[in-house]
Amino acid sequence: MKHTLSIVALFAIALPTVAYGTQQSGLLGFSAQNAERERAWERIMAAVPDSAKMREYHFALTRRPHHAGTEENHRLALYLRDLWEGFGFETEMVKYDVLIPWPGELRLKLVYPEEIELSLTEPPVPEDPDTYVEGGLPGMAAYVTPGDASGELVYANYGRIGDYRLLEEMGVSLEGKIVIVRYGGSPGQMRGMKVREAAIRGAAAVVIYTDPEEDGYVRGDVYPNGRWRPWEGIQRGSFLDVPIYPGDPLTPFQPSIPGVERLAFEDAATIQKIPVQPISYGEALKILRHIGGPVVPADWQGGLPITYHIGPGPARVEMHVEYDYQQRPVWNVFGKITGEIEPDKFVLVAGHRDSWVLGARDPTSGAVSLLETARGVAAAVEQGFRPRRSIVFGSWGGEDFFLLGSTEWGEQFAEELRENMVVYINRESYIAGAWGASANHSLEPFIIETSRDAPHPEASSLYDAWAAQRSRGGGGGGGVRVNALGSGSDYTVFLDHLGVPSMSLGYGGGNGVYHSLYDTFYWFQRFGDPGYRYGVAQADMVGRLVMRLANAEILPFDYTSAADAIGEYVDQLVTMDDGGRLREELRSIGAATARLRIAGSEANSVYERVLAGGAEWVASQQQTIREVNQLIMQAERELIDERGIWRRPWYRNLVYAPGYYEGYTAKTLPGVREAMEEGEWDIARTQAGMLVEALVRATDVVTRAGEKAKEALPRQVS
Amino acid sequence: MKHTLSIVALFAIALPTVAYGTQQSGLLGFSAQNAERERAWERIMAAVPDSAKMREYHFALTRRPHHAGTEENHRLALYLRDLWEGFGFETEMVKYDVLIPWPGELRLKLVYPEEIELSLTEPPVPEDPDTYVEGGLPGMAAYVTPGDASGELVYANYGRIGDYRLLEEMGVSLEGKIVIVRYGGSPGQMRGMKVREAAIRGAAAVVIYTDPEEDGYVRGDVYPNGRWRPWEGIQRGSFLDVPIYPGDPLTPFQPSIPGVERLAFEDAATIQKIPVQPISYGEALKILRHIGGPVVPADWQGGLPITYHIGPGPARVEMHVEYDYQQRPVWNVFGKITGEIEPDKFVLVAGHRDSWVLGARDPTSGAVSLLETARGVAAAVEQGFRPRRSIVFGSWGGEDFFLLGSTEWGEQFAEELRENMVVYINRESYIAGAWGASANHSLEPFIIETSRDAPHPEASSLYDAWAAQRSRGGGGGGGVRVNALGSGSDYTVFLDHLGVPSMSLGYGGGNGVYHSLYDTFYWFQRFGDPGYRYGVAQADMVGRLVMRLANAEILPFDYTSAADAIGEYVDQLVTMDDGGRLREELRSIGAATARLRIAGSEANSVYERVLAGGAEWVASQQQTIREVNQLIMQAERELIDERGIWRRPWYRNLVYAPGYYEGYTAKTLPGVREAMEEGEWDIARTQAGMLVEALVRATDVVTRAGEKAKEALPRQVS
Repeated sequence: MKHTLSIVALFAIALPTVAYGTQQSGLLGFSAQNAERERAWERIMAAVPDSAKMREYHFALTRRPHHAGTEENHRLALYLRDLWEGFGFETEMVKYDVLIPWPGELRLKLVYPEEIELSLTEPPVPEDPDTYVEGGLPGMAAYVTPGDASGELVYANYGRIGDYRLLEEMGVSLEGKIVIVRYGGSPGQMRGMKVREAAIRGAAAVVIYTDPEEDGYVRGDVYPNGRWRPWEGIQRGSFLDVPIYPGDPLTPFQPSIPGVERLAFEDAATIQKIPVQPISYGEALKILRHIGGPVVPADWQGGLPITYHIGPGPARVEMHVEYDYQQRPVWNVFGKITGEIEPDKFVLVAGHRDSWVLGARDPTSGAVSLLETARGVAAAVEQGFRPRRSIVFGSWGGEDFFLLGSTEWGEQFAEELRENMVVYINRESYIAGAWGASANHSLEPFIIETSRDAPHPEASSLYDAWAAQRSRGGGGGGGVRVNALGSGSDYTVFLDHLGVPSMSLGYGGGNGVYHSLYDTFYWFQRFGDPGYRYGVAQADMVGRLVMRLANAEILPFDYTSAADAIGEYVDQLVTMDDGGRLREELRSIGAATARLRIAGSEANSVYERVLAGGAEWVASQQQTIREVNQLIMQAERELIDERGIWRRPWYRNLVYAPGYYEGYTAKTLPGVREAMEEGEWDIARTQAGMLVEALVRATDVVTRAGEKAKEALPRQVS
Repeated sequence: MKHTLSIVALFAIALPTVAYGTQQSGLLGFSAQNAERERAWERIMAAVPDSAKMREYHFALTRRPHHAGTEENHRLALYLRDLWEGFGFETEMVKYDVLIPWPGELRLKLVYPEEIELSLTEPPVPEDPDTYVEGGLPGMAAYVTPGDASGELVYANYGRIGDYRLLEEMGVSLEGKIVIVRYGGSPGQMRGMKVREAAIRGAAAVVIYTDPEEDGYVRGDVYPNGRWRPWEGIQRGSFLDVPIYPGDPLTPFQPSIPGVERLAFEDAATIQKIPVQPISYGEALKILRHIGGPVVPADWQGGLPITYHIGPGPARVEMHVEYDYQQRPVWNVFGKITGEIEPDKFVLVAGHRDSWVLGARDPTSGAVSLLETARGVAAAVEQGFRPRRSIVFGSWGGEDFFLLGSTEWGEQFAEELRENMVVYINRESYIAGAWGASANHSLEPFIIETSRDAPHPEASSLYDAWAAQRSRGGGGGGGVRVNALGSGSDYTVFLDHLGVPSMSLGYGGGNGVYHSLYDTFYWFQRFGDPGYRYGVAQADMVGRLVMRLANAEILPFDYTSAADAIGEYVDQLVTMDDGGRLREELRSIGAATARLRIAGSEANSVYERVLAGGAEWVASQQQTIREVNQLIMQAERELIDERGIWRRPWYRNLVYAPGYYEGYTAKTLPGVREAMEEGEWDIARTQAGMLVEALVRATDVVTRAGEKAKEALPRQVS
């Protein structure tokens, strides 16, 4: 490793962050008096979340399959609407008509060297009555091109771009072959990218399975003896090409509402061009054992009791894949508490409601924890809590097919959301386990500070548990950190398309029932979060985040923290830039980032002095403070470029994007970074130029926010 | 890691090594004229090794089982004797009567939760006629106490000391249990230690198996499709407690010859106190799948298609183990070329002849490669080559039961060997693969230099291939290195008991047939070394080593290199000595090592100037040179202490020993290091004192050698 000089790091030493408000009030963005009131309201909220209630909701929401487009999904939307109305919220339902494939006949048969019809369904487990449910989706692949395929098999490990490139180096052609890949691999990669890259290389079809090394007996006891995936477990999933754009494949940039023109099926860039079939590892073993050719490299060997081979052949399969593609209804539900001082501004906290079968973990665990947050906030409202800004709870109607409900809504109300949505908090599935938080880094100090006040089932605070797990996991001496957001859940349209600062956080870990029949209420009681201790603690933390964001006098966005994160990413690019081809451009980005940090630091100092004036003083300056908050919100949105990043015009955030080849894992400064990785130096220079412009714009807005705030300085200290 | 100041490293910078002879002649220890002659003789030797001949010998030596004590083993000794007589060598056979167990009835049965009689034999493979051979040893465990045992199973991973300590921390008692462990693990651990530590903790018996993660389908295709261990392959082996002492367990320190008193069986410290049964992984799966209790830690999970559990129980087994312990004959064979100038001094190069069944790889591959070395040296002798010292080729009659032939011989002729045996070169099994060399570090420069002249099947020299494999393997920037010798082959008595500098080197890698029925001629032709290309190259390298050691005017022992290695080991101990409890003692060792380095450097300079006088001048100083060589030999032997190291009086080498808990892997500076590891600080201080004394003695002898050599300095340069 060569030494790099970090301009941003130098400034970081020179200009320490001022956490405005924290010193006086303990709460970022609050005057001392309002912080005290905020804490009192939070105590009322925190007394509410309750494991018995969570269990009751959880049972109710997991009785029948409710994937996107079903009547049961609509019924559950109404159930939530009614609940929220009971909480006193204003409610609203929004409907989209989205292209959704439901499976027709699916068949996969090994035809050589022996004939075996492979099972694409999962047997019920006697201990678990819910596994006898009917009407759930079988082992299926959404958004693939239906058809028949047959041919010799090639094993391509995780189907990452590096795996395919290694096959090319070995001279193994995929032309006309059936590629078999396993789920997972690092960096975190969506299914669709495995298929896209196989299709580009001429593959006729893809078989995908979960290897027991990632999720099965290698990890621990399998269901029903343990939490991990049994021999018959199948991971269903959407193969939509999310890094191109998420949501309805026929309506990029537009909502799927009547009157909006649809693309032709063949023209949808995000639908995979070949058929795909997911299978269990028990079934995969039956075909993998017959693949010949070279033995795989050591790290391609999985956990099945055979030596893995690359092929091609002699094993051959026949695949028959039918899907019924129709426009089907997707319902979002919202429940709103209207703010008192800035009612048009709102914090949205939401998660999805649809699942592949019963979805007790994914997503209902998250939904019921969030219901408890809502019930807690409602209790505070009932006792007189009036947040400064509005709070909206939401439930998306189609996430698993890949972000349908959130994307269409974000596209429909783009202008309003960019103007008024303060922050999006994504609350997905959870289980008892490690805490994780990803977010815009302007929100990092706020999230960490809040975690100090939140409980944890096995530590004195969430913060303490988080810090302990960082040091156990070898997370380095850097303390608690927030990660960058990639994609894979409903924050994508807000963060990447609209530039709304987002966070996605919660408890979790490996599970074993992901996207399978076995993701049931019974499984969750035994292995997910027995007693809902983590779910209750999470409801508390989320409640505090929402209430503080809605109630802070000055929005708790720290642009010094954003600049520090961007500075780290620039350092990574400098390290990648071995040949120094982008030296000047990277220096410009570094300098622009440093200026953002200075502006953030100066603005923070002003906010600090404004808040020191006390609640009454701040209240007397409402009009100015509203303008300051508007500018604080706006600054982060300046990191959007309307032209979009390289190869992906829908993705407009120049700091965060899902990797083009990964989908799940973030690529930071994606336009520059991915062009560098591909050796596209001219493109990298253009992308760098866009990034510098965006940083300059953001810096300008942060500076204006600080200047505006000076108008609200208390007379005695100005 | 804290910074340590290496005294030795400082001197290493100040005083570069002088490779006496190398600069003028290209050969360490040779004058220019003799180096030229040496190279000419080596060319004659090197023209001889031949793959067809190797194949012929290989076939002849692998027709029938020939384990220690059998008539076939004796017959092969006579075959070698006759061959060597044909080469013109003086031959000799030596016989010992050693306690050797041959198996009686062996049975292992799973009795709960189902009844399964487990197979302890390996089925033949149709492609490989040799696997139909009769009379070989079954899956057996030598030197365990016969008997019956039954009880619940506990899985103890590799059965390393750390594994047993983890079980203790978890509160899992082994009292009365049957412990099941897998072979292997790092550091390299002999079977016997796994059993010793289980017995100490109260286990009733041990079942041992090879996990496919170490040797089986996880590594690659299994026999007969590939080289790796099939589901039915069983690793037999000796469980003798070698780190206590090797060889006949009833005659420690003494040869097993008539008239020598034998210990009672019960008093033999090296025989395991409980019964043991090795099995295949196919059979192990049948019992491991029924072990319950906690799931194992992640790195205890093996490659079988189950989640591994610790137990105890509910699985239960019954074991019945009978052995017929008898004194059985073990024959060593030697073939000698008598030296011209120092005929009493000799270089011994040997390997073993016995095997568990047919032993095509272990050890016959090594034996036939060494036969080609012998044939090559014989060809040179026939054309007039007269080495300065004697050369002896040897074949040990019982190594697999653990070093029987070599240990008894070493114990019988201890005095003569300490006086006259210059170096022992161990040539064990080989296969095509990576080159490895372990040796006393005084021989490191000599071995590396020689590798530059030796061929390699796929590189321009052995050295080049060795260096490339170091950098591929991430061996660090340190270049080609020689490792420390632990135990596990026949150098043990010479190096560790007598202090004779030793080396063990050759090609190798993971194989899959180790100690099984499948170690056959057919396997070797397909997977071992097809075409014997590596075997021929190895015969050449070994020939050069032997001829140079026998022919060098001044012995090529470099004590600066020895001191550098010891200095590294001292640095490791300083790092271990966190509390600084041994600070003074380690400083003393460091200082004594530095003085050894200075003495070595000064002596090397003198040798350099002596050799610069030319071959004729050196020949005119024969008496002095002989005395110098005697002192050079003696210096290394001063690192022996007659009291032995901590816990193990038979082990007398204060620099190298097999680890007490490992057996295979070396512990350097073992007395001090192992006492430190166990927190025995008083013992560590005593051991450190012994080491300082030994270093002072060795330094004194090296200094005397240099002083003596000054008497032989050419007049014009003295």
